[in-house]
Amino acid sequence: MQKISNLPKSKKVILKTRPNGNPVITDFDIIEEIASAPDDGEILIEVQALGIGAWIRTTLNEKAFHGATPIGGVLPSMGIGKVLISKSKKFSEGDIVSGPLSAQSYTTLNSDFFEKVANPEIDPFTQIGVLGVSTGLTSYFGIYDVGKVKKNDIVLISGAAGGVGMIVCQLAKIKGAKVIGVAGGKDKCDVLINEIGIDAAIDYKNQNVDKELKIHAENGIDIFFDNVGGEILDIALDNLKERARVVICGAISQYSHHNSIEGPSLYLRLAEKYAVMEGFTVMHFEHRYKEAYEELLDLYQKGLLKAPMHIEEGIENFPLALQKLFTGGNTGKLIVKI
Amino acid sequence: MQKISNLPKSKKVILKTRPNGNPVITDFDIIEEIASAPDDGEILIEVQALGIGAWIRTTLNEKAFHGATPIGGVLPSMGIGKVLISKSKKFSEGDIVSGPLSAQSYTTLNSDFFEKVANPEIDPFTQIGVLGVSTGLTSYFGIYDVGKVKKNDIVLISGAAGGVGMIVCQLAKIKGAKVIGVAGGKDKCDVLINEIGIDAAIDYKNQNVDKELKIHAENGIDIFFDNVGGEILDIALDNLKERARVVICGAISQYSHHNSIEGPSLYLRLAEKYAVMEGFTVMHFEHRYKEAYEELLDLYQKGLLKAPMHIEEGIENFPLALQKLFTGGNTGKLIVKI
Repeated sequence: MQKISNLPKSKKVILKTRPNGNPVITDFDIIEEIASAPDDGEILIEVQALGIGAWIRTTLNEKAFHGATPIGGVLPSMGIGKVLISKSKKFSEGDIVSGPLSAQSYTTLNSDFFEKVANPEIDPFTQIGVLGVSTGLTSYFGIYDVGKVKKNDIVLISGAAGGVGMIVCQLAKIKGAKVIGVAGGKDKCDVLINEIGIDAAIDYKNQNVDKELKIHAENGIDIFFDNVGGEILDIALDNLKERARVVICGAISQYSHHNSIEGPSLYLRLAEKYAVMEGFTVMHFEHRYKEAYEELLDLYQKGLLKAPMHIEEGIENFPLALQKLFTGGNTGKLIVKI
Repeated sequence: MQKISNLPKSKKVILKTRPNGNPVITDFDIIEEIASAPDDGEILIEVQALGIGAWIRTTLNEKAFHGATPIGGVLPSMGIGKVLISKSKKFSEGDIVSGPLSAQSYTTLNSDFFEKVANPEIDPFTQIGVLGVSTGLTSYFGIYDVGKVKKNDIVLISGAAGGVGMIVCQLAKIKGAKVIGVAGGKDKCDVLINEIGIDAAIDYKNQNVDKELKIHAENGIDIFFDNVGGEILDIALDNLKERARVVICGAISQYSHHNSIEGPSLYLRLAEKYAVMEGFTVMHFEHRYKEAYEELLDLYQKGLLKAPMHIEEGIENFPLALQKLFTGGNTGKLIVKI
């Protein structure tokens, strides 16, 4: 009870106004409140790092697949933290946990939502990035189980310099595929070629994607892994091989105008090419998280999987980080260090 | 050589102007020319019946997947005819053949393009409909191989009262699925329920498709077999069960404005539901035509497969038949009897 009387102040990022288009920092406010004392079954967590993912934007609409954030509500976010006070048998004080912490510096929540981190000696950024559910695990199931990538496949990846994109690039290379990444700007393309080691990169801001794609994949592509949607999806559909697979992982180009989503106007190419478009969310693979985590950890520890990240410092910069995600301001997984 | 001096006059349907939207009879002309004498390897065919399919419209654009019909060129069409003169070892005079006859009353073409009809005692309309490549075989591969329909699946079919739609409805019922058809008008819906024997029909011209669908499939659909595209595709995407399959067979609502195809704006439902959208054309299954033909023939001869059709008389009415296809003027396969 002594500890409870000494509760920390928590800084929280709340939704002030629903973004009209891409989120900007003025859509959010930072407030400070004393953290709640945990009830039975709850834990009070000191947040260490939060991942910034495009799915957060989808919760800022009034109707949302992942559940809407109310005006005045704290933004959702997945992350890593340390248990300060435990009123749950599941955790002890000092445990490092991962789960839906939300955008605040201290969180009090039901312990059922959290898992103990299997390897607490690994830094929280890597836990969120290459080993995280929304990044590493999403990439793993997306390119292996949905994409079914195999040796010598020609794989095109949009948003290739993003958190998921960079892991997908590497996992596809590990299987022996030829990998072509699409990213915004020469710097990102250079990182993809020189650090991530993909075969070709297309800068959609300065190059004609269709023309470049036809140079690097003159006979078309076997797999398109899409994080972006919009025009790039149509270009990919126009360059499919017979029996190609299109993996719908996300559509960052479309989340900010959810009432007027631009569907792929070339979807009939799926019929012409007897091709498949398959979507997924990582939650569909929840029963296999352990398998994916262990394989990713093994690759990471052997130095076969790089974990590029872009770190912003301080919960106050959570809104800025979210804004950057939608303007392409990050290379690698965007993480806020608390 | 005697026969050659006595060549018949052939009436041909040619493209006068490229349709702006749905095809109308004034886009076409009928001309009359003496049929060409067959060269070595060619056959002269007396056309008996021609199928009208939506794919014909796609050849009327300047750029076309199935090959563009030039201005002044004869319209393409698949059909059944009798060999009048054979300069090919493959066929004898009197043989009944099927293949790409094109829209004319007599055709001279390379015999390689044609197949001898396996059961010439069956009328040419049934050969084009329930046993035809563009109708029966398309339905067979679409619902069995692409849709992978199985017992107790909830199957939604658009264009259900069309040539392909009606066969798909019956094949899905044969596998033990619950079948919901979407068609335009009460008469078509009555035929689907009372003659074809599906479980529910939705009249998209007079009913709210989404609302009706939620009544007949409150937990969503397992398969959507799409011949139509547009708004109905989006409604289906909004009602998918987890792991549902969307079969893209055609998109008759979109063929007439090919430069501004409306892509499915709710395609991200594929991700939310871990669902698949797969397209095909019947040509992708060419190596299995015999298997499908024999199974369809068996079902037809046992009275388990009805072959509803709408027959227009005379090659002169080919343009009218095509116009009707796009205004929903047919129930069952549209065929022109020559």
